[in-house]
Order: sequence, then C-alpha cells, then structure tokens
Amino acid sequence: MIKVGIVGGTGYTGVELMRLLARHPRVKLEVITSRSQAGSAVAELFPNLRGQIDLNFSEPAAGSYRDCDLVFFATPNTTAMSQAEELLDAGIRLIDLAADFRIKHVPTWEQWYGATHACPALLEEAVYGLPELNREAIRDARLVANPGCYPTAVILAVMPLLANNLIDPESIIADCKSGTSGAGRNASVGTAFCEVTESVKAYAVSGHRHLPEIREVLQTLDTGADLVFTPHLMPIIRGIHATVYADARGSADQVQSLFEDHYRDEPFVDVMPAGAHPETRSVRGANICRIAVHYLPSANKYVVLSVEDNLVKGAAGQAIQNMNLMFGLDETTGLEAPGVMP
Amino acid sequence: MIKVGIVGGTGYTGVELMRLLARHPRVKLEVITSRSQAGSAVAELFPNLRGQIDLNFSEPAAGSYRDCDLVFFATPNTTAMSQAEELLDAGIRLIDLAADFRIKHVPTWEQWYGATHACPALLEEAVYGLPELNREAIRDARLVANPGCYPTAVILAVMPLLANNLIDPESIIADCKSGTSGAGRNASVGTAFCEVTESVKAYAVSGHRHLPEIREVLQTLDTGADLVFTPHLMPIIRGIHATVYADARGSADQVQSLFEDHYRDEPFVDVMPAGAHPETRSVRGANICRIAVHYLPSANKYVVLSVEDNLVKGAAGQAIQNMNLMFGLDETTGLEAPGVMP
Amino acid sequence: MIKVGIVGGTGYTGVELMRLLARHPRVKLEVITSRSQAGSAVAELFPNLRGQIDLNFSEPAAGSYRDCDLVFFATPNTTAMSQAEELLDAGIRLIDLAADFRIKHVPTWEQWYGATHACPALLEEAVYGLPELNREAIRDARLVANPGCYPTAVILAVMPLLANNLIDPESIIADCKSGTSGAGRNASVGTAFCEVTESVKAYAVSGHRHLPEIREVLQTLDTGADLVFTPHLMPIIRGIHATVYADARGSADQVQSLFEDHYRDEPFVDVMPAGAHPETRSVRGANICRIAVHYLPSANKYVVLSVEDNLVKGAAGQAIQNMNLMFGLDETTGLEAPGVMP
Amino acid sequence: MIKVGIVGGTGYTGVELMRLLARHPRVKLEVITSRSQAGSAVAELFPNLRGQIDLNFSEPAAGSYRDCDLVFFATPNTTAMSQAEELLDAGIRLIDLAADFRIKHVPTWEQWYGATHACPALLEEAVYGLPELNREAIRDARLVANPGCYPTAVILAVMPLLANNLIDPESIIADCKSGTSGAGRNASVGTAFCEVTESVKAYAVSGHRHLPEIREVLQTLDTGADLVFTPHLMPIIRGIHATVYADARGSADQVQSLFEDHYRDEPFVDVMPAGAHPETRSVRGANICRIAVHYLPSANKYVVLSVEDNLVKGAAGQAIQNMNLMFGLDETTGLEAPGVMP
Repeated sequence: MIKVGIVGGTGYTGVELMRLLARHPRVKLEVITSRSQAGSAVAELFPNLRGQIDLNFSEPAAGSYRDCDLVFFATPNTTAMSQAEELLDAGIRLIDLAADFRIKHVPTWEQWYGATHACPALLEEAVYGLPELNREAIRDARLVANPGCYPTAVILAVMPLLANNLIDPESIIADCKSGTSGAGRNASVGTAFCEVTESVKAYAVSGHRHLPEIREVLQTLDTGADLVFTPHLMPIIRGIHATVYADARGSADQVQSLFEDHYRDEPFVDVMPAGAHPETRSVRGANICRIAVHYLPSANKYVVLSVEDNLVKGAAGQAIQNMNLMFGLDETTGLEAPGVMP
Repeated sequence: MIKVGIVGGTGYTGVELMRLLARHPRVKLEVITSRSQAGSAVAELFPNLRGQIDLNFSEPAAGSYRDCDLVFFATPNTTAMSQAEELLDAGIRLIDLAADFRIKHVPTWEQWYGATHACPALLEEAVYGLPELNREAIRDARLVANPGCYPTAVILAVMPLLANNLIDPESIIADCKSGTSGAGRNASVGTAFCEVTESVKAYAVSGHRHLPEIREVLQTLDTGADLVFTPHLMPIIRGIHATVYADARGSADQVQSLFEDHYRDEPFVDVMPAGAHPETRSVRGANICRIAVHYLPSANKYVVLSVEDNLVKGAAGQAIQNMNLMFGLDETTGLEAPGVMP
Repeated sequence: MIKVGIVGGTGYTGVELMRLLARHPRVKLEVITSRSQAGSAVAELFPNLRGQIDLNFSEPAAGSYRDCDLVFFATPNTTAMSQAEELLDAGIRLIDLAADFRIKHVPTWEQWYGATHACPALLEEAVYGLPELNREAIRDARLVANPGCYPTAVILAVMPLLANNLIDPESIIADCKSGTSGAGRNASVGTAFCEVTESVKAYAVSGHRHLPEIREVLQTLDTGADLVFTPHLMPIIRGIHATVYADARGSADQVQSLFEDHYRDEPFVDVMPAGAHPETRSVRGANICRIAVHYLPSANKYVVLSVEDNLVKGAAGQAIQNMNLMFGLDETTGLEAPGVMP
Repeated sequence: MIKVGIVGGTGYTGVELMRLLARHPRVKLEVITSRSQAGSAVAELFPNLRGQIDLNFSEPAAGSYRDCDLVFFATPNTTAMSQAEELLDAGIRLIDLAADFRIKHVPTWEQWYGATHACPALLEEAVYGLPELNREAIRDARLVANPGCYPTAVILAVMPLLANNLIDPESIIADCKSGTSGAGRNASVGTAFCEVTESVKAYAVSGHRHLPEIREVLQTLDTGADLVFTPHLMPIIRGIHATVYADARGSADQVQSLFEDHYRDEPFVDVMPAGAHPETRSVRGANICRIAVHYLPSANKYVVLSVEDNLVKGAAGQAIQNMNLMFGLDETTGLEAPGVMP
C-alpha cells in the first residue's frame, strides 16, 4: 500500500482527492492536515465521506508526514514551495495540485503569482504532471507539478495539432468555460449562488495565471506557439469546456485520424467521432478528457472542443494518475469509474 | 414626489428596492447610504442599475436623511432600532425591512435575535406591514415593520382558514422552501454556488427566527394558533414555496370560495383555481402571492400552497406597497409588472 | 459472473444501472434491449459510457435474454408484467424497477395505474425489494419489485418510529422534494430546462401513485398507519429530500439511539448525529439514504429528514443491492463509491 | 393606442412579448392566435400573466387581425412568409420574430432553412430590424424582420470595429454562449432539465442558421467581412454572451472612446468602462445590450464582450423597440425596466 498524506484537505480538490482515494485499492490515507479544521472529522466537513474516511484533520507539524510515501498538496498557491525541500529530503515524494512548480521560468511565475519563489532550485527537477506529455519523466519524479485545470483541457486539445504541424502555432485562441468549483471552496460574494447561477461572464480577459502556464508548455512543443486565452465562469459545479480555434496549414483531410492516432493508447483521452460535440456532463466525476476536432473549410480553421471535469482530470484525478505512474501501478487504478450522467 | 432614502443598500433587498423604485413614478431617491461602499456608484456594484440610478453610496451621517420623507432600512437586524427614534423625531417616516420591530413581545425578540432591544418604546407604535392584515393602520403609521419573507407566505396561506374557523388552529405545519437570496448577499461558504446548487436541505429545524414572528401574528387572529415551521434551502435565487398543512374542522365544501372571497379585493394576492399548483417562477420579480387550497378527504386536512418572490412580496415590493399606503398613493403604483417567466 | 440483461435501457434508471454495473466485479452485461434505439451503440446515446460498455441496443425478441441469469426491467410501467411469467418460466430471475409488482392489492394498483394487471398471479410471490425490510425474502426471490424512489426515502424515515411505537401511526405527513430525473428521460414541456430551473412547485397534491405504495408497506408494520404525501419538483437532477412529520407518543428521550440501533447493521442507511440536516448532494451518485431525526418539544412531533439519490438508492443502486442479495454476493458489491460532492 | 395582434403566442418569445406589452402604455392587445391553444386563456398557459392579460387564444382565421394596426409573428420559421402579403395588403404592418425575412439572398435562405421561400417579392422591402443599424428605415417600414438573438449580440459587438476600420474584417471569431430559452418552448429530450443543467456544450459547429444572417449584415458594413461563429448551450434560461475576437489594425488607443461615441445616443446599448466584464444577469428581463471592449497587445487582437437577454433585446424587446419606431413613439416606451438582478 502507498502511504499517502494530504496537506490542506478542506477545499474542493482536497475532498475530491479523498473521494477517489477512499476507494483506491492500493492507497492507505495516513494523514490529512488542516490548520483551520484540525481536530474535527473529515466526514463532518464532507458528509459524502461518512463511512468512507475515518480520519480527523490534524494540525500540520514537523513530522506530520513522516510515515508517508507521498504527499499531495491540495493547498493554496505558495504553500508547497515552502515545504517541498524538507519533504523530499525526508524521502517523501510530492505532488503539488497548486501552481508552485508549474512554470519553470521564475520571473514569469513571480510576475503572475505576485510572490517571490521560495524554492527555485527545485523547479528544474519538478515534472509537469501531464501524463500524455511527460509520462516517462513522471514515473521517476520526486516532485510533480500537477497541471492547472484550463491548461489540461487546452494542451490536450492542441497537442495533436502542433505535433502534426497542422496549424499556425501563433494563431491559437482558447475560449474556455469553467464550472465554479475551479474558484475553490471560499467564502466570497463573487462565487455566491445568487451571483453565479443563471448568468455567464468572462473574467480576467486581460490575463489569467493559466495563460503563461499553457504558453510555456506549448512552447516545448513548438517554440513559436502562442495563444489568446479567455476564461468564462459558468453556472455549473464541475466541468471545463475549451473551444480552441487555430488557423489550418496544409490539408485537413487526415485530422480526425491524426487525433485518433495521437491518443490511441491514452486511457484518459477520448477522441470523439467526427462531427461530435462533447458535453461536460459526460465526464462529471470521471478522469477523462473528451475531444472532438472540427475543420471549417470556409475559414480554413480548426475548432477543437475539449471537455473535462476540472476537479478530476483537471486536478485530483490527474494527481492520482500521476501517483499511479510514480509508484509503478497500472495508470488507471482507482480511476476507472464512468461519468455520472445525468 | 416622495423623497426617499435607503439605509444599507448593498444587499439583495437593497438592490431590489432600487430596481423597483427606479421606475416608481412618484418617488425621488435622495440618498443611499453604505459604510462599506461609500463613494462608489450604485450602478458599479449593481450593473443592472446602470442608466437607471445615478447616485453614489454615501457615508451614513447625522443629517443624511434630512431631506427625506421616508427612509427604508435594508440593513442587517439591530440597525434600525438604534436610529428609528431620531428619524421619527425629525418627522421622517420609516420602513424597516429587517426584524427589529416585527415582534411585539420584547423577551421573545431578545431570545431569538440574541440582543437587547434598543428601542422597546416604539414597538407598540410599530405597525406590522402586511397590508392584507393591517391596511388601515399602515396608512397612518410612522414606523412600519416589514414582514419576513416566510411569514408573508405562511400568514397569507393561513389567514382565510383561521378567519373562517376552518381548521384546528394548533395543527398547522408550514413546510417552506426558500430561494437562496433569502440568506442575503454575503461572503459565506454555506451560500456558495457549489454548496447550494444541485442540492436541497432543511435547516434550523429546531427553530428559526421567523417562527415566533408567524406565531405572534397568527395569535392575533386566533389566540390558540400555533405551528411547526420547517425551512428548506432551494437552489433557486428567488422564490418561497410554503406548503401548509392543517386539520380541517367542519365541512370543506366552501373552502375555495372562502379563499376567493377573502382575497377578492386584494391586488397582490391571487387565489388560483381549485386543484392548481402554483410555481414560484410565476411570481419572479412580481409583487404577488399566489395561493391554491386543496382539501384531502381521506386525511381531513387542508394543504395550502403559497408562492411569492421572497425579494418582492416577501421584502422590497411589500415595502413599497406599504409606502404607497402611507403616502396615499394607489397601492399598486410601481408594482404592476408581471412576473418574468420563463 | 452473473449474466445480466436490461430491458429498456434508454431512460435514466437504465443509464444509471449501466453506470453502476459497468464496474461491478461480478456482473457480465449480456444484452440491453430497446425498441427505439435498436442497433445503435449504448455509448452513443450515453457518452459517459464510452469505453465502459461496448454493447449495442438490441431489438427485444423471443430469446433475447436466454443467456441471462437476471433481467432488470428499466421500462415504463406495465411492461414487466406482460413478460415476467415467460422469463421466470425460463429460469431467469427478474427485478422490475417500474411499479408493476409493488402493490399487492390488485384493485388499488389498477385504480392508480389505470390499467388491468396482466399478471396478478405473480403478485403474491413478488418481493418488495427494500432490503432493510425484506432482506431474507429477497435472497430467495425470483421476482423483486424494486421500490419507488419516494417510498424508499419515506419508509426508511418512518420504520424506526413505527417499529418502536413512537408515533401515532395515522399522523404521518411526508412532504417530499424530488429532483427532476425522477420524471424520466422524456420529451415533455413540463420537464424542459426553462420550465423547471429557478422554480419550485408541488404536484399531484390530491394523490400520487407512490402514496398507495407507501401506505401498503407501512401497514405491514402497523395496520393503522396512514399518511399525507405531497411531492414537490425541485430544480436539481438527482436527489429526494423527505421531510416527515408525525405526532410523538410517550417519551422522546431515546429516539436518536433507537434510530441508530435500528440501522446499526445496515450498510446503506446512515443515521446522522442528533441535530443534523442532511443534504441531498451528500448522496449524489451513492447508494445511501441519510437520515436525521428531530424532536420538537413544543409541538410534540418528530421531524425526520431523509435524503437519497433517487436514481441510486431510489432506483438502480437499490436494484443492484437486491441483485447482490439474490445471488449471494456481499450486499455492498459494486455499490461502495461515495457521493460526488461538490 | 396601437392595436396589436400576436400570431402564435405560445412560445417563449410570445409570452415575453405579452409580458412587455401588458404594461406598454400605448398598446392594446386585440388578438392572440394559436391553433394548439385556441379557446384557452392566455393566463392559464402562462400564469405570470394572471391579472395582466384577459384574452383567450383564438383560432387563426381570415380576418383575425382585421382590427390590428400591427401584427407580431412569434411563430416558427416559414409561417410569416405565407401570411405577410395578405396582411400588408389589408394595411396591417408586420414584425416577424422568426427568420423568414432576415436574409435577403433567397438561395442562402433556402439552403439554411430547408424550404422554398414563399414570398421572395417582399424581401427587398423588409427591413432588418436592428435599430442601431437601420433606425430610419424601420420608422417607415411595413414589414420588419426582427433580428436573431445571436446576430443582435454579435453585430452590436462588431459594428464599431468595422465602422472605424479597426480590424481585419475577415478575422472575426464569435464564440457565443446562449441560454436555453433560445431553443424555444418545445417538448424535446435535448432541452430537458436533466440534459441541460450542470453541463456546457457547443453545437452546430459546422454551421448554424445565424451565421449567414450575421455575415450578410456585416457585409453591408464591409464587403470583406466574414466570421467564424460557434454557439454553445448554457444552463441558464435567459442570456447570450458573445465573445468576439478580431485582429486589430492600426492603433488601439482610441477604441474605448470610439465604442462610447458609436453608441452614445443609443438608449439600449451600454458601453461598459474599460476593463469591464459584463454579466448576462445584469440584463435579465431588460432590453439592453451591454458591451465591453478589450485590447490584447501581445496578440494584437480585440476581444469584445457583448451580453443581452435573448428574449428581450434578442427578440421581444427589440420587436417592441421596432414597433415604437414604426408608430412614432418614444423608442424606449414600455422598455424602461432595469434588469432583474439577482
């Protein structure tokens, strides 16, 4: 059994990690820390876990994770970077579900996250945890930077286009729609039910933290790649729908089969039939990204539709997929459940 | 024109008051105060009011309301009671949309609101602002206690039963379902979109502040009246649905016509045809309470269904209805718009 | 492996059965029939099942189920009763998720379902598939009538009260709130998004088919039991919240421990701590009924709050629980997953 | 008073027309026809209109509209074109809320609507009813083609860009998100609550009927204009959010003031401050289009955000705005109400 700790399990990625790990056949949850909830039962805060997880939240302290093989950071940004070195030195591997190790370029990270990076020395070693891009490196990683929810949906949509040289790499526009759980479990007027439901809006049009993350990853595939990224807030709990536009190059005849070939062996990327329109509800609760590619002859553009559950393939599920790789398990262990639909 | 001030216009009853008053033909909004938003434009906080209301929020201060004929308190509980006397002394009339003057019995109020009442001397004078019950007193009132949202729906459902001696007055059960706007415009995890949507729950089963309010009003109709009151939180913005059960007495043959007679002249109570099931959406944005009465022969019980928009007939609309009465206007002025459906 | 057939898998109970059976370790899905969808892939209609279920819908025909040990009827009412005898004669066991075998009293069934019962001879043998009531009989049953969604939530709420003689059995009022999936996957204006969302309404106040079902079951516990049952339509996909009122008899001191004792060994009934308010979202996708019991001293009434996912513990999950019992498996097999929250 | 008839008032544009016309001070509703609902009260189908509209639906017949000055067609496509000539000949003016007269080019219309145009002779005369584009022509029109909901939002977003030569006219991408009421009030599985809520999807990516409509109108502004148009279905009742991308030309310094200047005198287009993100809820129920323009220097693109209520500025409200123009009323008559928020 892999002995696992979770730091900061009081948010939505935390409870989703616990939901999935509770039934993972090879994991033993050792410790879940939370300063704010220390002492109370996990299942009191999250009653869906009654009868599933018997742990209490504990105060984070020196030695909290000493029995763990792996620690997940389900914390706000800037937490993991201050604790990573100590854990790694103690031989504990680490998956950060926040953004501390996603961007290699320190000035870029510091500009977008408004903080001094506490641990730049580990950035080189940290592996960007998108298995479809970095599977082999993840297997051996001590430190995995779990991708952002938007980047996962967008990068998976774009990878086959760039890999097959099908588009002008500078022409990418990612118009993205996200469920509200992406904003976290916080007390804020902006995410209140009455402010969000029955409404749609764009936000951060002038720049969102996931833009430099996507850009940096895409540039590992094509140095010229760049994009416009516009996030929108949707009145749904879970789900990201990325609608990605790019100018086509050359013939589009093979695009469907190129997508199918690109992801043929991927357990968690599902290329839909030509002409399909994936729905976010089809992936609710499931660790899968469903993609459909359309070609518009009149505009000579591709439109790629990519959906995922931001809390699963966009966060906790992908983190477990990474864990499975890091510990030599079948990549799909504990992640086989279909989406809950309706 | 009636010169109107609003104290604390940053919540949902505040913005709803402004939405309705913006088009009221006999009202001039003089001042809207808010400590937290002082200096910023009303229409910046509430963009639906762009082009409708040009005022800025102003800091509440001595003399803020000196040009007003009437001040609405759209504040949290315990604010109005500390300012009422001064305003009344200055000849300004007052409608409190919070609970400070709803309950006459001081110990009951203090028990449920956890505070010492700052102004018990005015309780006798304060008129409970349910026009269907107290129309004449409201016309002359200096101080109106605008009813709670649940009490409005429940009392209007029960009044014809008690007035016509149709039920055992101790047998009332009010199972109520409310939209989330009833909880106010606050930063709280409990009212976050992801916590409320796609879920239903009861709350405060052991006792809710609206219970003593309803009880006290019903006992003015029948000294033996009492009830069980169970509120539930619904994933809708606006709307209260009260389902009221009571044991029938005597014959039920006339109940439909007794309800129709009871409310025949009421502009804002709509008795539906026999057998109907009113929907909250039919009253969205409108100052109306729709009621249907059912008799169950096998159980010898009445089931009364009563719906309203908690922000309109349950708050801001009713406050304006009271204002119209207080200033000798047609009671329906500015309140004629139908519900927004779908 | 249990070889399973599904009749009519195009509705919401059908897709939910398939979602759960897809990962059931002891089940092999042999055949899924549908007249309307014959020939098309299950995963085309229900894309959440892509990669999970490779079957096509097939035309129902003589011999369709000959390789099956068990057939689930996820059909409209009146289908199972015309095919049950033939299947049983062929040695195939049967679980009907519709209502054909839920009510033993033929005239009552015929009155509420508006049809002549095609197979009254089997009613005596059919076992009402509520494991918490009929576990031993289910193990040996050839024919199980899977309970209605409302009856499951209400009966589980009431059983400990009746079993311990805590209430006046004639005083029960069940005010129930249901998600829209309970109405099935149909083309109808009444269940259209724009008609249901942002609204709440009661329906069938004068009588709903689940009333005689609940009444008949409760009367097996106490011959005097009767109830008022009011269903309400909620703008949520999944979830039933039953709020059950009853007049207390004797002392209420032990009610919490009596509930806990009653369900101590039940894997799928979770008695919440005293004072709790269960939320439907805590059981989304999970085969569990969460119950909290409140006592109101001033009214001398109990209020029992009972939540379930109407498609799981209220339909497909309970059907699988019954299957597990019928085939000697651990009752929880394939049903262990926690609720999806948020 | 303008004497008005409505053909086919049983859909969402019909009920919205009636909601707005019920309080219009210069309109008398003469007749509302519906084959399916003939004989029943309007307020029975739409209970929000109880006490507001006392008419019954009547069977459409020769002479149904003989007392009308104006008839609104709130019918499915292809109805108005077969009746227009007769009405115009009788001296009755006509506003078609469907698509029969929106596209001038007959083969294009016939290709996208799959029918032979019954009345091509009137296409030249028909005025595209976007007041911000065709105000003067609308005043004198006998026949107005009320624009589609998506075209209204997109064209208003793009007009200042094209008018000021700020963009490459071929580079427009309109990624649009629509509420479900745009799909009409129909019995269909695809618009059922459980299919739509908690999900997001694109549809008709390969081509939607509003594409040729937008294209034809934009080409009246710039013959080279073309666009990609991708509609998405949102789980909200009302609201369109258009996110429009285009490649900038020349300097972007003046774009905010150019937008403000362009719409300075428009009563129903609201240019938001620089950097704003309009929300669809701010226009719920109101006849207004709110627009914010962003410039992205790194990509040298504009992103224009444009929101409207698809049933108001995108349909019924715009139709009344056109009526006001046609009959010499103040353009804002009956359309002054602010959005209902929250």
